[in-house]
Amino acid sequence: MSLTIGMLLFEDLEELDLVGPWEVFTMASMDMDDVKVVTIAEQAEPVRCAKGLRLIPDHSFETAPPLDIVLVPGGQGTNTEVENPVLIDWLRKTGSSCRWITSVCTGALLLQECGFLDGKRATTHWGFIETLRKRAPEVEVLENVRYVDDGNVVTAAGVSAGIDMALWLVGQIWDIERARQTQRFMQYDPAPPYAGASV
Amino acid sequence: MSLTIGMLLFEDLEELDLVGPWEVFTMASMDMDDVKVVTIAEQAEPVRCAKGLRLIPDHSFETAPPLDIVLVPGGQGTNTEVENPVLIDWLRKTGSSCRWITSVCTGALLLQECGFLDGKRATTHWGFIETLRKRAPEVEVLENVRYVDDGNVVTAAGVSAGIDMALWLVGQIWDIERARQTQRFMQYDPAPPYAGASV
Repeated sequence: MSLTIGMLLFEDLEELDLVGPWEVFTMASMDMDDVKVVTIAEQAEPVRCAKGLRLIPDHSFETAPPLDIVLVPGGQGTNTEVENPVLIDWLRKTGSSCRWITSVCTGALLLQECGFLDGKRATTHWGFIETLRKRAPEVEVLENVRYVDDGNVVTAAGVSAGIDMALWLVGQIWDIERARQTQRFMQYDPAPPYAGASV
Repeated sequence: MSLTIGMLLFEDLEELDLVGPWEVFTMASMDMDDVKVVTIAEQAEPVRCAKGLRLIPDHSFETAPPLDIVLVPGGQGTNTEVENPVLIDWLRKTGSSCRWITSVCTGALLLQECGFLDGKRATTHWGFIETLRKRAPEVEVLENVRYVDDGNVVTAAGVSAGIDMALWLVGQIWDIERARQTQRFMQYDPAPPYAGASV
């Protein structure tokens, strides 16, 4: 099954928001030549992430291939990009023809700006639950969940939650056995140290 | 407390091996101007990771600052780098003056090549436990653990285990409260979907 997954890059995106799902999708499709996972930015120039990691995009908006799945990470940069009409227009147009529209963390704010969350349930980073509620009374914003699936829109909670969401999607796109295999290859048996560290 | 953490880049490193700890260390030190987390490659040229993500290093071996902590990711590229005398020499020299020497996944093979694991307990990706044992009879290789601390050498299991190791290190470098706060900011309450997915 031919499939192209596009991950949106922009200045000040949060590194793990992007690379968690990137690892999951690329690991899941290692043995499939017809699956492509690519990074896409407005311009074909290096992007500096929120914590300073510098990435080179595979495509600009102009050269990006048609996508089956789009993933939007969060991070400080969403404050700026939510008001960037070029990015929002591209995302609205691109997402409209995607089988799945997904976000991690405050990437949900960009999906909301595009109208993709209208009338749906969604989530975001715990620190932005109220922000999303205020911006979008028409969205049912859920908290204390790792990810929310509503139709073809899937939103993950903060940062690391993108890993769980991506594994779930692998189970939906292919099958649960492939998701389990991917989890095994990335040795994702998480055991956060220091008990009581949770929210 | 001034501190510099250097993360080694090389061709075909595994993306999440690097970016998991990167997220943890940079998130933990957000409010500390005297903490730097940098990427270092042999040459100051873009590096293509194992799954195709392209990174621009902050420093070459020549321009790298003195490090307090070095982190070595794993990935396919370790097969090549374990036989790269320039990288091994740099790592041996750099690690010798570090407070902590750390690896994720098959990055342990590079630590072993430098002699850092001699007479110590260590771990690596589950698929490379026997490889490490064969290479290094003098290393006590542990399996089914997320990370192993022996003296100032800390080795993590495969890919995602670097996140847990880095959070543990934050607790050691600063304090447990900072580790918990970091975990909270990156919303690391992992919940892998599909029960029974574990190794």
